Amino acid sequence: MPLASSILLTDMYQLTMLQGYFDRQMEESAVFELFIRSLPEQRGFLLAAGLEQALNYLEHLRVTPEELEWLAASGRFSSEFLDHLGQLRFTGDVYAIPEGTVFFPPEPILRVVAPLPQAQLVESRLVNLIHFQTMIASKAARAALAARGKGLIDFGFRRAHGAEAGVLAARAAYLGGLAGSATVAAGQAFGIPIYGTMAHSFIQAHDDEIEAFEHFAHAQPNNVILLIHTYDTEAAAEKVASLAGRLQQEGITIQGVRIDSGDLGDHARKVRRILDERGLPAVRILASGNLDEFAIEALVTDGAPIDDFAIGTRLVTSIDAPYLDCVYKLQEYAGRPRRKRSEGKATWPGRKQIYRRFGTDGRMLADILTVDDDPQEGEALLRPYVLGGKRVDPPPSLESLRQQAAAQLACLPEPLRQLRVHQPYPVTIAAALQQLAQEVDRQTA
Amino acid sequence: MPLASSILLTDMYQLTMLQGYFDRQMEESAVFELFIRSLPEQRGFLLAAGLEQALNYLEHLRVTPEELEWLAASGRFSSEFLDHLGQLRFTGDVYAIPEGTVFFPPEPILRVVAPLPQAQLVESRLVNLIHFQTMIASKAARAALAARGKGLIDFGFRRAHGAEAGVLAARAAYLGGLAGSATVAAGQAFGIPIYGTMAHSFIQAHDDEIEAFEHFAHAQPNNVILLIHTYDTEAAAEKVASLAGRLQQEGITIQGVRIDSGDLGDHARKVRRILDERGLPAVRILASGNLDEFAIEALVTDGAPIDDFAIGTRLVTSIDAPYLDCVYKLQEYAGRPRRKRSEGKATWPGRKQIYRRFGTDGRMLADILTVDDDPQEGEALLRPYVLGGKRVDPPPSLESLRQQAAAQLACLPEPLRQLRVHQPYPVTIAAALQQLAQEVDRQTA
Repeated sequence: MPLASSILLTDMYQLTMLQGYFDRQMEESAVFELFIRSLPEQRGFLLAAGLEQALNYLEHLRVTPEELEWLAASGRFSSEFLDHLGQLRFTGDVYAIPEGTVFFPPEPILRVVAPLPQAQLVESRLVNLIHFQTMIASKAARAALAARGKGLIDFGFRRAHGAEAGVLAARAAYLGGLAGSATVAAGQAFGIPIYGTMAHSFIQAHDDEIEAFEHFAHAQPNNVILLIHTYDTEAAAEKVASLAGRLQQEGITIQGVRIDSGDLGDHARKVRRILDERGLPAVRILASGNLDEFAIEALVTDGAPIDDFAIGTRLVTSIDAPYLDCVYKLQEYAGRPRRKRSEGKATWPGRKQIYRRFGTDGRMLADILTVDDDPQEGEALLRPYVLGGKRVDPPPSLESLRQQAAAQLACLPEPLRQLRVHQPYPVTIAAALQQLAQEVDRQTA
Repeated sequence: MPLASSILLTDMYQLTMLQGYFDRQMEESAVFELFIRSLPEQRGFLLAAGLEQALNYLEHLRVTPEELEWLAASGRFSSEFLDHLGQLRFTGDVYAIPEGTVFFPPEPILRVVAPLPQAQLVESRLVNLIHFQTMIASKAARAALAARGKGLIDFGFRRAHGAEAGVLAARAAYLGGLAGSATVAAGQAFGIPIYGTMAHSFIQAHDDEIEAFEHFAHAQPNNVILLIHTYDTEAAAEKVASLAGRLQQEGITIQGVRIDSGDLGDHARKVRRILDERGLPAVRILASGNLDEFAIEALVTDGAPIDDFAIGTRLVTSIDAPYLDCVYKLQEYAGRPRRKRSEGKATWPGRKQIYRRFGTDGRMLADILTVDDDPQEGEALLRPYVLGGKRVDPPPSLESLRQQAAAQLACLPEPLRQLRVHQPYPVTIAAALQQLAQEVDRQTA
């Protein structure tokens, strides 16, 4: 599934402003930065994701003849401007922190340096792409921390907000630490491992539960995970146990059972006992149904014998924080730093860099946010991805990004690994940046 | 923007079950119904939306050679099954309540009657499409009720969950009562009225605020809505007033000003006073910034002189209810009614119909949910849309659906028009349906 890439995936004001910039030939270099203003409640960190799709969007930025025609018919734009728009390509630079990197507000995770119209036009879709995947990867990372090594699978497609959300959620969740997804299109698009079991309807379409189990095992002999929660969970576990020997003689192994309602921990214990007593200790138990990182932590802490968790709706909608306060702001135009000063929404001006310091144990200690030409001790997080409209390096594999994310989570200070974070990670604003902000204020006062 | 229509936009278990159905030639007629199990907290009603995209999906359901190749390479499916899948088309019937109709859990809003594999395969995407638009239309309807006739515009694209979410949210919100959207692609796709103003960056890219205003007015002479909140709102309103006369001489009228942070009601009052004193009573005030139906109601009730509201993130993410408990369940197979009985998730079996009764004042009184062949007093809500794979009627216009929605909202009982609903609307389960459920339970006990 190729992602939608139309130039019309934007807010009308971008185009009306572009007409304005065109009229006055305001085409000097602009610097915009994308950042998140604040953390959702209880959260300790965010995990960057979505950069690959954002860069792909910039690379393919162009308006089609049909789109130009539609814009012309709207009567809002001059024909000279539309001719110009027809030629527009992204020729600028992009700096960003790598996908799978832990970050904190108000650190910029993307910087676009390009002629003003280009940098302006792309705002809506860049935020749309990076905001969503960052939100999901951050949520997935929490589930991965809570699961303490147990398997985690994304089952969320149907309640994701549309097809693109479903497919990109699968990508972001995999990047953030899940083992895979049920969303087939995400397997095709990104090579994510795809998992599938059966639904209640499969059982109900048969007259008999055990007949349905046997039939499914024959149809999917290498993927026998049986849903035992349609009628009576423990009775179904007994049926699975009786069936196992028969299937074994045919060379088919039952790999797992799935429960998805009621008290999951209680059912898992009873089912585990039944399976163990019947000589089936290798049959795994997969639990699903309204799960999120909090429910998983409770089940894991409680020692519930669940091997794998499927998480859906609450992951792909990021239920406790269905949006992040993500913005893309002008920081510099024509060589002069700019700053928004609206009430409660003031921003740090200029091009910025983040430096991260680590302790001797390899754990993250503190970040410093400063202007771009103010080197500090520590690791600089923003690096060039696109220069003069061209990708600097070939796209990294999703596997390598996933490993990057896991390595980052391993470096989190212990208090940030908790699901409820009380003590924020220290992000210091360097003196040079504070000074620049004061200068800008003086100039625009 | 054509919607993604890949057959791989589904959960893997649909395909593994289809292999199972294929092996046993389980192709008899199945009846699935789509419904929402319960209302989100405080909500009194839902508004159906998304049917048009769902029907379009069914009409174009087919697998491409590339997709077949990818499925074959996965090694999970027999080649006979994949050949069969390559021929699959939707040949069944669809009954539904019209988009823009008010409904209540657990009323089915869509019924699919088709050979089991077809009806099963489409579950994930049907839910994905109808769930999202229904959620957004329902949220938009609340904003429309709260706005009491004031203008409402969708500004949510950037924080919608991906591009499809942004575009479909604009459609659903327009259907639910908004006046239009800022999302350009939604204008192209659905003919929705598109609105656009300017961003802070436009102001900041200029050295002077008034210069930016004048410049924008020249670039968009028929659409002069000026953002007055970049530095000092009231000072900017004075600048607008000074500029207005000058522009008037050039034949350009300032249509409105936009404020988007701080105390919106307080700023609106001060700005209104400035504009009125300077002889500009016709200049409209548009407010935006973290708005939802509750904030709008508070501002309207308080008499804030705001003419139009833009709502974004909180609308398109349905912030208070980012998902609905929407499911698609097998109700009948091969002529026999079926019922899921899992704990807390039991469903009403068989094909059903909803009858709605109205009072003499035209307001809705009560609904009765019953089996399909049990006529009741009142209006039957489910009607045929597709028979034998063919659309019964040409697609209705979005305008007509929007009018339908407005007419429905006008028929809501008064207590349901409040933002916080305490008394649920009565939905009665008819005796015939209760009896059928008991029979099914006896048979599968």
